[in-house]
Amino acid sequence: MSALKDLVEQHKEQFLNELFDLLRIPSVSADPKYKADVLRMAEAVKDSLIRAGADKVEICPTPGYPIVYGEKIIDPSLPTVLVYGHYDVQPPDPLELWTSPPFEPVVKNGNIYARGSADDKGQFFMHVKAFELMQKNNLLHCNIKFMIEGEEEVGSSNLDGFLLANKERLKADCVLVSDTSMIANDIPSINTGLRGLSYVEVEVTGPNRDLHSGVYGGGVANPINVLCEMIASLKDDNLRITIPHFYDDVVELNEEERNALNSAPFEVEEYKRELNIGDVMGEKGYTTLERTSTRPTLDVNGIWGGYTGEGAKTVLPSKAYAKISMRLVPNQSPDTITELFQRHFESIAPAGVKVIVKPHHGGWPVVTPTDSDEYRAAAMAMKTTFGKDPIPARGGGSIPIVASFEKILGLKTVLMGFGLDTDDIHSPDEHYGVFNYLKGIETIPYFYQYYAELKRK
Amino acid sequence: MSALKDLVEQHKEQFLNELFDLLRIPSVSADPKYKADVLRMAEAVKDSLIRAGADKVEICPTPGYPIVYGEKIIDPSLPTVLVYGHYDVQPPDPLELWTSPPFEPVVKNGNIYARGSADDKGQFFMHVKAFELMQKNNLLHCNIKFMIEGEEEVGSSNLDGFLLANKERLKADCVLVSDTSMIANDIPSINTGLRGLSYVEVEVTGPNRDLHSGVYGGGVANPINVLCEMIASLKDDNLRITIPHFYDDVVELNEEERNALNSAPFEVEEYKRELNIGDVMGEKGYTTLERTSTRPTLDVNGIWGGYTGEGAKTVLPSKAYAKISMRLVPNQSPDTITELFQRHFESIAPAGVKVIVKPHHGGWPVVTPTDSDEYRAAAMAMKTTFGKDPIPARGGGSIPIVASFEKILGLKTVLMGFGLDTDDIHSPDEHYGVFNYLKGIETIPYFYQYYAELKRK
Repeated sequence: MSALKDLVEQHKEQFLNELFDLLRIPSVSADPKYKADVLRMAEAVKDSLIRAGADKVEICPTPGYPIVYGEKIIDPSLPTVLVYGHYDVQPPDPLELWTSPPFEPVVKNGNIYARGSADDKGQFFMHVKAFELMQKNNLLHCNIKFMIEGEEEVGSSNLDGFLLANKERLKADCVLVSDTSMIANDIPSINTGLRGLSYVEVEVTGPNRDLHSGVYGGGVANPINVLCEMIASLKDDNLRITIPHFYDDVVELNEEERNALNSAPFEVEEYKRELNIGDVMGEKGYTTLERTSTRPTLDVNGIWGGYTGEGAKTVLPSKAYAKISMRLVPNQSPDTITELFQRHFESIAPAGVKVIVKPHHGGWPVVTPTDSDEYRAAAMAMKTTFGKDPIPARGGGSIPIVASFEKILGLKTVLMGFGLDTDDIHSPDEHYGVFNYLKGIETIPYFYQYYAELKRK
Repeated sequence: MSALKDLVEQHKEQFLNELFDLLRIPSVSADPKYKADVLRMAEAVKDSLIRAGADKVEICPTPGYPIVYGEKIIDPSLPTVLVYGHYDVQPPDPLELWTSPPFEPVVKNGNIYARGSADDKGQFFMHVKAFELMQKNNLLHCNIKFMIEGEEEVGSSNLDGFLLANKERLKADCVLVSDTSMIANDIPSINTGLRGLSYVEVEVTGPNRDLHSGVYGGGVANPINVLCEMIASLKDDNLRITIPHFYDDVVELNEEERNALNSAPFEVEEYKRELNIGDVMGEKGYTTLERTSTRPTLDVNGIWGGYTGEGAKTVLPSKAYAKISMRLVPNQSPDTITELFQRHFESIAPAGVKVIVKPHHGGWPVVTPTDSDEYRAAAMAMKTTFGKDPIPARGGGSIPIVASFEKILGLKTVLMGFGLDTDDIHSPDEHYGVFNYLKGIETIPYFYQYYAELKRK
């Protein structure tokens, strides 16, 4: 098994080329115009699993995009690991800010640049390649089941149904996911908490048509001004969210937990420098690490209305829109929060406008245990390849499915991600380190070895 | 002269067709992609003046779009009227809300639908056609000078220079403009006051790149949230503008002036019904008529930032933008107000963001006299053709050039517009009544007749 590093090095070129083929497919699930590409991507995932040696590979239809399933049962008495990943990606906008085209992968400065390189094609594909290596070199110590979905970036709305309908087929001992990040390449970490999500779109309508601001300005509600005022009112001077009952279910950390969290390596000056900001900004009374992991948020993800072209147009628009998302922490329910938001937002609308709140998707916050066999196996695997113990760290992202695994399948998840926070996922110039990609492929087989050992005890 | 109505009726078809030819040219001055069309429009205006019988017709270059000049001096001892209009139009966006294409004019329900039909092609062209009628029927009682510009919708920034360089050529007794509206087709009115304008664009930058809101959300300033908060803070609970010294130069009306203004026919319930709004909204302590004519405003004309496509993207954007305009009243200076805005907006930016304020264009507010010969001549002309005395009314729009006429040429202006507030100028489905177009052509010759009579006394 010490030859793993060499094996990976040997196949490096092949592993990169195969990933590039996947990255060239623009599988954007949020935008219907990419539908054919998303479906083509599902086919490509299926083919890659077959080539890697999986059995019973199948493109399973759902009311949305399909889920690709495959498995290798080497011995029913051995532990079984369910590997989850997603083959869909975020939209590439704003396109003009990419320094190379988002769907033409290229390696620059040791990084693979492409939409989906880190989130999550590069990460789920490490598992396919690691599986192939174990298969071909007789290194497999567990049974493996793959479940790669195509709707993670739009809320995984058909996954619960699939889990419910396939409880038997998905039977396993734990779930293994690589869709998160580590602190740094020399500071390995394992994610032990993910925030949930409530995502809404709001539409504010003033007069029934665009008006001349000189003729009507000052006399009727301008929906953009009103929308800005409504959004501004959602936080108080301490940047606490003002929606009634918003914090009711939030689990406050005790002093010990806060200290543990704040002991993670973090340099606020470097953080500010790296983002080129004059200062950090967030809820009063909490550190940046706390604000981005254990505290809920409210961010406007997009806003538009009126004239946005070149030059000046003195229009008083009829409508204004915003996409607003709230990151949630244990034990906030996305449905409850969406409802609280909706009720509050409608209640603060002045008489001069009409407001529509349209819920997009939501996801439950999760906290994963650090005392499980799967966590220990992941920590031992990372220690073996990185040379040091990984730090348990709460991350900020949202993987709603982790809560579903627990609720529907009764399975705990280990979030062994190899990305970095600086990978610009969801942004122009998303990238993933070649080091991280190869290190992941090298680390994963150790997970299976240690997990089998721990489970035997 | 009583045959004027018949003459207009006789040429109705021709007058409409000639206007349609002008409306087919998309002379959008705000967007560089229409440059060739704007220049083509100047040629068309020149040709129309020549055909109508004007002398010395010339396309006068400026650093921007040219000004078309033409004149008819029948007797130097007679009064001379300078007719001003503009051949450029507002951008047609949002295109999808037009029920017929903006540059394919069509008559529906007695209205001419096209961008520029009311603002200002349909209105300046009434003067060209009225001039033609007077010319061909020996009805001209004054000298006429035409000055039709192509940059009114982008701030007329080259007109002052033209006025300064052509003081001699532009010598006249008054300026006559049709670029405003009346109260109703059966309630003629003459505009006696126009608000000025300060127009800025703001850019708020948070982190140096788009970020994942799950990873960074709550920890750094979101420029959209911040922009909303900054915009919201520009007005207090009474909807008064909070920019320091903003109201310093505002002329407050006395009780008598307020009463006169508020005696104009206005039904708030009908206004609300027509705009489909639950309530009017504006500065506390003032009526809707006052808010839209004698009070300054602050409106967001456009806002954009982050993800605005279909579906959901959990981006924490790097930048957010807004176009903001302030309507000004006597004696507010556009330059002073722009400077006050800029200083204030920069001062309220939190440390987590950077702010850029870019001034677009401005215009001085104006009040025109009601005791001048030109106002009396206009009032008598309208009484002749409408059958009742026009009401002097303060309008909300901004025609910066009116202040320049006074400052540079020493001339008073009479704003005899024939449009309606419901013409949807600057909006989709801009239209101009066939009634209004023809009534304007019929009324204008009477102006010259009465003006010559009054000046003779």
